[in-house]
Amino acid sequence: MESLVPDLPSGPLDVYRTKASFNWKEMLFFIEGEDVIKFKKHLFQTLESDTLFARLPGEDVSVEKMKELTFLRVKKLFSYDFLPDEEAMSNPWLTVVLNNSLGMYDWGCSAKYFLNRGMFGATVANSGSVRHLEYVEAINSMKIFGCFALTEVSHGSNTRAMRTTATYDPQTQEFVINSPDFEAAKFWVGNLGKTATHAVLFAQLYTPDQVCHGLHSFIVPIRNPQTLRALPGVLVGDIGRKLGQNGLDHGFAMFHKVRIPRENLLNKTGEVTPDGRYVTPFKDPNKRFGASLGALSGGRISITRMALTNLKLALTVAIRYSATRRQFGPKDTEEIPVLEYQLQQWRLIPYLAAAYALEHFTKTIFMNFVEFQMGQMMKDRSDRQAELGREIHAIGCSSKPLGSWTAQRGIQECREACGGHGYLAMNRLGDLRNDNDPNCTYEGDNNVLLQQTSNYLLSWLQTKHHDGVKIESPLHTVDFLDDYQKILQNKFTADSMEECMDPTVCLSAYQWLVCFLLVESHKRLQQQKQAGLHDFEARNNSQVYYCRSLALAYIETNCLQRFYDLTFDPDTPAGLRPVLKKLCALYGLWSLSNHTTTLYQGNYLSGGKPAELIQMSILTLCSQLKDDAVALVDVLAPTDFILNSPIGNADGQIYKNLWSTVIQGAQALERPSWWREFCSDKPVVGCLRPKL
Amino acid sequence: MESLVPDLPSGPLDVYRTKASFNWKEMLFFIEGEDVIKFKKHLFQTLESDTLFARLPGEDVSVEKMKELTFLRVKKLFSYDFLPDEEAMSNPWLTVVLNNSLGMYDWGCSAKYFLNRGMFGATVANSGSVRHLEYVEAINSMKIFGCFALTEVSHGSNTRAMRTTATYDPQTQEFVINSPDFEAAKFWVGNLGKTATHAVLFAQLYTPDQVCHGLHSFIVPIRNPQTLRALPGVLVGDIGRKLGQNGLDHGFAMFHKVRIPRENLLNKTGEVTPDGRYVTPFKDPNKRFGASLGALSGGRISITRMALTNLKLALTVAIRYSATRRQFGPKDTEEIPVLEYQLQQWRLIPYLAAAYALEHFTKTIFMNFVEFQMGQMMKDRSDRQAELGREIHAIGCSSKPLGSWTAQRGIQECREACGGHGYLAMNRLGDLRNDNDPNCTYEGDNNVLLQQTSNYLLSWLQTKHHDGVKIESPLHTVDFLDDYQKILQNKFTADSMEECMDPTVCLSAYQWLVCFLLVESHKRLQQQKQAGLHDFEARNNSQVYYCRSLALAYIETNCLQRFYDLTFDPDTPAGLRPVLKKLCALYGLWSLSNHTTTLYQGNYLSGGKPAELIQMSILTLCSQLKDDAVALVDVLAPTDFILNSPIGNADGQIYKNLWSTVIQGAQALERPSWWREFCSDKPVVGCLRPKL
Repeated sequence: MESLVPDLPSGPLDVYRTKASFNWKEMLFFIEGEDVIKFKKHLFQTLESDTLFARLPGEDVSVEKMKELTFLRVKKLFSYDFLPDEEAMSNPWLTVVLNNSLGMYDWGCSAKYFLNRGMFGATVANSGSVRHLEYVEAINSMKIFGCFALTEVSHGSNTRAMRTTATYDPQTQEFVINSPDFEAAKFWVGNLGKTATHAVLFAQLYTPDQVCHGLHSFIVPIRNPQTLRALPGVLVGDIGRKLGQNGLDHGFAMFHKVRIPRENLLNKTGEVTPDGRYVTPFKDPNKRFGASLGALSGGRISITRMALTNLKLALTVAIRYSATRRQFGPKDTEEIPVLEYQLQQWRLIPYLAAAYALEHFTKTIFMNFVEFQMGQMMKDRSDRQAELGREIHAIGCSSKPLGSWTAQRGIQECREACGGHGYLAMNRLGDLRNDNDPNCTYEGDNNVLLQQTSNYLLSWLQTKHHDGVKIESPLHTVDFLDDYQKILQNKFTADSMEECMDPTVCLSAYQWLVCFLLVESHKRLQQQKQAGLHDFEARNNSQVYYCRSLALAYIETNCLQRFYDLTFDPDTPAGLRPVLKKLCALYGLWSLSNHTTTLYQGNYLSGGKPAELIQMSILTLCSQLKDDAVALVDVLAPTDFILNSPIGNADGQIYKNLWSTVIQGAQALERPSWWREFCSDKPVVGCLRPKL
Repeated sequence: MESLVPDLPSGPLDVYRTKASFNWKEMLFFIEGEDVIKFKKHLFQTLESDTLFARLPGEDVSVEKMKELTFLRVKKLFSYDFLPDEEAMSNPWLTVVLNNSLGMYDWGCSAKYFLNRGMFGATVANSGSVRHLEYVEAINSMKIFGCFALTEVSHGSNTRAMRTTATYDPQTQEFVINSPDFEAAKFWVGNLGKTATHAVLFAQLYTPDQVCHGLHSFIVPIRNPQTLRALPGVLVGDIGRKLGQNGLDHGFAMFHKVRIPRENLLNKTGEVTPDGRYVTPFKDPNKRFGASLGALSGGRISITRMALTNLKLALTVAIRYSATRRQFGPKDTEEIPVLEYQLQQWRLIPYLAAAYALEHFTKTIFMNFVEFQMGQMMKDRSDRQAELGREIHAIGCSSKPLGSWTAQRGIQECREACGGHGYLAMNRLGDLRNDNDPNCTYEGDNNVLLQQTSNYLLSWLQTKHHDGVKIESPLHTVDFLDDYQKILQNKFTADSMEECMDPTVCLSAYQWLVCFLLVESHKRLQQQKQAGLHDFEARNNSQVYYCRSLALAYIETNCLQRFYDLTFDPDTPAGLRPVLKKLCALYGLWSLSNHTTTLYQGNYLSGGKPAELIQMSILTLCSQLKDDAVALVDVLAPTDFILNSPIGNADGQIYKNLWSTVIQGAQALERPSWWREFCSDKPVVGCLRPKL
């Protein structure tokens, strides 16, 4: 353990590190495991030793240069081949580790690599057939470079409404790809801006009889791999600067009657025969549509983890900073670390608890997803497999909102908690916020996705009412709903802070909350329908305060439940349990406190005491955890080189590191190149003021 | 009216504009007044006609170039002299208008101009005496360029702890300015990075007897105005890239025994005689300290308005976009504008209501501040003037958090509500978020500032308890507290949505809330003290859930009250009242709904009905206001050139404007300069992988 994980440098953080109630290396081994620690250590050291990956905190790099650097780094990743396919197959978790470790370095770099090899390559492999394997091989050797082109200028969430067409021409046995107008241009496609030679393109498939068979995916050549110039008929380009992730080239493309061979149809869900007949193994076009978008479903679970990674980085910066930054004190002569203030604890430590909860949550739901994927590969046609698919879908659609919003708010709090120094680009909190933002949007806008989860929950209630079926799912995330009528009789009974800090109190409250919101959502929907509204409007008018809250409460319950189970797992080392239990209790109470209005509204709480108990318990737990906070982020933190934030360095020398970076900044001490503009040509005040 | 404010271009937004319940031009004249409309129109047209101010949405400009452009633009502002001193004196509001109008164009530009002429110039004028007038003149003609240097590397909030020293040497009649070490370097000083020739510098004043007389301000030369090179003994430079406002050069400076003439002490609050004796008109050093920082007090009120300006811009973009972006619909063939979704309304329209509430609030508190300033200038020594100062301080310290956080959250919501297009830099939501962020931090971290407000409120309770004094303040923001015992007997009694939508219901609830939090905060403080804690710790442990919430509730109450009064003001045109009343009701209910837990906790609410009534009223008001939303942002929006956001243009042609900007982007259609890196030198996969 000692040789693999060296001690952190001594410095101003020692005082907190020695006060920690647990051994941070033991926690690291428990959370990551030796294999992952080794994998990350090798990866981080390799990047740090390679000057191509060198950078300065906060430096000003043009978008053009950032794209070039990112491309060169991705190219180098092919040479390093950190995770050969066979290793990824035998341990799928390592793909997640690689993605997030590269993301800790730079999300643009990670995204560029994975959009090509993962998203493009995997979609070809999963949606195509043997005839497409040559593309996968060409990708793996970087002969070609790929992208995934679904979104159009005027359509994102409503995927079915995409307007690009692929019309089959039996005469030449080709599909003709066409964009009716620029509003149907493919847009926001990662890698398409500068580098993609090929796209997996989604288009409405038309047979010669002019029947539309819905959205299908095709391999479409975009640029000549010898010259990187656009192919005839393809208008392709870069969509320009974004809020973040500017190393990745997002692009657009319009197609003017571009012809591709019939075989370029990814034909798993449907095929066109040479003479132009459409054949499909799916009878229900809705099922086919679902399956053709199946490649997206793992994405949301990955994104939840990516958001968590951002939160970990931000917390590392903010908590190390708070432990060394001193401001005010009981006496004029002595200032105390800002982490000692209850207010600062309350701002940051609940997010630290959330990070630990999400750490376990994202790992276990990924494992659930792997189980599901295995079933798919094994062509498991059982009811359980189908049910598992629905449950995973409901989890993915709500875990992404939970993760990305928690990270968004947490990073913002970290930014503000670091004051002015948090606003300096070099300390990275701005980049983290900017890079995290798309997690709220892509692969489904958070608010839109939550409807998938609430629909799933409501359909269980429906099934129970109509068919008397017991509510029970493969991962048991909904089983408690079967007792909803009994659960709704419950009340909050905790009578002391001590009781309140037992997470079962939160879990019970959460179960009540989900049941309450489920029944209320159902009621609201029925009311709307009885008032004569159509299904579409009834659903739209039941989101706010009902279905949306239901989906969030459900996923928070599940996240808390999994964390709680971990604290009782026999494999959890005894030395770590006390701190994990505190984190679990804090996460539960803090999350729950966003729902107290509903708890009062449904009479689960009444009077002043419960809210006060919850609040006091949160503050007490924050205070109990503040001496562990530095050690807790030491577990989550990457190396200083990867973190790339002077005030977040492991040595805690915030001012030395900051100052050193500032004075070595480009042209920091030089007068500006345009100094003559100040010194001569003085303006004549008001000379351009219009005369009245 | 018609000639001054032309109609907006016809297009997809017409459908909402014709549905509006009021005349947007009438609202514009009511809110701004003819003078301001003329002033802004001239300003905006001037900038648009001057190619120096030309720019492209989202273009990638280096930080170095951005600073140069900003400097040149500021220099040009001297020539335009949009607001000569005499006009600013006769109508102080125009200074605010100028700041915010320039800020709508670019905050870096506005800040650079106002830090020099306002912050530096005004501090010299207000804290100095006749002997310093030459500096003010030199600033006004750009002979010199100034900055305001208070913050140090290791101290921000704790201003008293600044460590830069100014030691008087009677031999040469000079002060010796010295930075003990780099942790005491001045830092985060706007204009100091590249351009400042002089600073108003805050340092601990030492007389030859080695007595420290506390923080004083001095005029310190930094760079040679002929060469812009640093003067001997001054280590000055640029602190580097920031999250936003990169046109403004923030700098640092360390002083190595730099000598300045005795006369450079800004001597309003204290003077050193040639032979080295310290004399001051203030007996109490605390009062002197307060007065020497007096130059800051107007800042917080200005910042509240600056934050609001950002919110207005973001809302313009998001609401115009939501009114034209269509996604899904009741039938597959017909999609509806996303603004028609209740969820989208609920995400955006309450912020629109907040913008209208803050519009009136920031204007009226600025007028209160002007009244106070006039009193100061007239040397009003009355009790009322002193009380007014305390009240303005309490308002400023809480209005900045209210404004900056509302804007922060609102901009984030707008960013997400515009989906992927909101993440494109060209649409400006990222810049708005980045540029707004420092409003949460400078001139006092929001959380720290709120303590000033709660201290003010608690001191009233204390005074009433101890001295039986009636609680009554010059602006009457605290008068209702005098009845706190009676108010605490009240309950929520509204029984229907209709009742609930009357803002008096919210105002009553808010008054109860402030009284409750005041009494609870007081109780909490007493408990802590009785438990043996010192004042410092007792206060620290009473912020979360108590003092902090108290300060926010107080300022929200005041903001709502002022808006409510406006809707009944005889000068408010009858045609505008209905929509203003709805906005007022929505703002009140939406703000209040953040406090429902407390309302239940204190038994002001009980049972399920009140929360449900509040929620349903919010949704109903959103729905009632959605047809007015476009017209409401038309009132707040600047010209398209100033807004600089393709999806926010007044013509509503979101896709045409976006597409046109994208395809004309720099190198959008070119292959990358580094294309050979893709086409040759293909990586050998795994060649750098360590052999096992």
